[in-house]
Amino acid sequence: MSRIAYVNGRYLRHDDAQVHVEDRGYQFSDGVYEVAAVCRGRVIDEEPHLDRLECSLAELRMDLPLPRSALRLVTREVLRRNRVRDGMVYLQVTRGAAARDHPFPEEAIGAVVLTARPVRWPEAAADDGGVAVVSMPDGRWGRCDVKSVSLLPNVLAKQAAREQGAYEAWFVDAEGRVTEGSSTNAWIVDDAGRVVTRDLESNILGGITRQRVIGLAREAGLEVAERAFTLAEAQAAPEAFLTSTTSFVRGIVSIDGHTVGSGAPGPATVRLRELYLDYCRNGRANR
Amino acid sequence: MSRIAYVNGRYLRHDDAQVHVEDRGYQFSDGVYEVAAVCRGRVIDEEPHLDRLECSLAELRMDLPLPRSALRLVTREVLRRNRVRDGMVYLQVTRGAAARDHPFPEEAIGAVVLTARPVRWPEAAADDGGVAVVSMPDGRWGRCDVKSVSLLPNVLAKQAAREQGAYEAWFVDAEGRVTEGSSTNAWIVDDAGRVVTRDLESNILGGITRQRVIGLAREAGLEVAERAFTLAEAQAAPEAFLTSTTSFVRGIVSIDGHTVGSGAPGPATVRLRELYLDYCRNGRANR
Repeated sequence: MSRIAYVNGRYLRHDDAQVHVEDRGYQFSDGVYEVAAVCRGRVIDEEPHLDRLECSLAELRMDLPLPRSALRLVTREVLRRNRVRDGMVYLQVTRGAAARDHPFPEEAIGAVVLTARPVRWPEAAADDGGVAVVSMPDGRWGRCDVKSVSLLPNVLAKQAAREQGAYEAWFVDAEGRVTEGSSTNAWIVDDAGRVVTRDLESNILGGITRQRVIGLAREAGLEVAERAFTLAEAQAAPEAFLTSTTSFVRGIVSIDGHTVGSGAPGPATVRLRELYLDYCRNGRANR
Repeated sequence: MSRIAYVNGRYLRHDDAQVHVEDRGYQFSDGVYEVAAVCRGRVIDEEPHLDRLECSLAELRMDLPLPRSALRLVTREVLRRNRVRDGMVYLQVTRGAAARDHPFPEEAIGAVVLTARPVRWPEAAADDGGVAVVSMPDGRWGRCDVKSVSLLPNVLAKQAAREQGAYEAWFVDAEGRVTEGSSTNAWIVDDAGRVVTRDLESNILGGITRQRVIGLAREAGLEVAERAFTLAEAQAAPEAFLTSTTSFVRGIVSIDGHTVGSGAPGPATVRLRELYLDYCRNGRANR
């Protein structure tokens, strides 16, 4: 079966899915995106993803190029045409094509690309051996709250991490505090058993999975603190983990070569992974 | 006459010039570019542009996807097919198309896009009334020395400047010192008559026009200092100007609403503009 992509109003064979070379997403990274997981045919946290998309677009002073209802329909259609029941959907919106010039063009029409692909999601909370992270200075721009495609710094950080045998790079700010991963949010469990992740007043992206896990943790009676933590605190913490749309919840067992906790995902991490997997599978209404 | 673009080995009608939606330039701004001016059929400072392209690619750990000799030939062919004798050529190289994932893909083939368009360059040094600039905090990433397409911060700054009636945005670092413009280098003439522009040890792009103007200034007997200057120093300076491939040398007559010098491009600025225009027109060998 050939894959199908939605590109500016048309459903195209994946191989033929193209945008103009003067699309401002290509020349200026002048666009934003969302990635959502699909579990058992449902788009996980679709409305929060669309909310965030609208926030990112607003920062770029763009409108949604299609009404939300149309975006939802296109999403369903792309999932159907690609027969994706478990997988992910990728949505990118750029300012569209215009003769190359930095200021916003007057006449460009926003471009929309939507693709989907199957992914086999984890079966059980226990099937996570944990991953290693390495730290690096956070030299990204000052608006990481915007989910833009201006991702070269993240790409370079992720690549550097992989070359060091790590799954993820943790960015550390000038004060030695962890901001977030290159494509994930960073968490620890502190000595008092609190689940800790960086506050959104910082220069980080407000992860949809992050927000969902905060809610699930609180429902389960865990205390959650949104605050900064240092690399040293994380290395000495009983547990550390990361969250993202495609990583779900994964234990971190090593930070810059220092073993975290017992060297395996800790009990709070496994519990939150279980709660999040249940959430994805059980089709609870967004709340 | 329809325009022609070179895209990954083919000469295409501009309207049909497309890249894949999973080109990493589009999804990750994982690519670099160059813009060169063409005057009387010559590509101005072509070799320094190709040198810088190779430096940018090296930072992304990419090779030139074509030998320089081939790039020069493609450039000539695009200029010929578009009948550009005075204009500009745009060259973008990305890591190419691959299933979306942050780390470098193993098998992607670098993508090359080359376009050209006619531009009517200034006729005389005197035909510059000068422009206004406004300042804003430099919140860009820490590798502005790489000429990448991760340009969203520059786009937003330029747009903000234009909405304030200014031609350009000057970025100012945490110490109050000017780094560069959103797409130009920043210069002043100090009280001693020295021509001053920020040093390349800073987080700025090494402009090809900047380097050429430094050389031309020195040949003309002007003293050049590569050092930081504050916004206040620039506002009080006898002259200020900017340089870029497409702006050449332009006087700055207002900074955040403060008139610079006499309110018209100053004598050193006009002299350097003249020297640079002569340089572009007279086809001197690169040196």
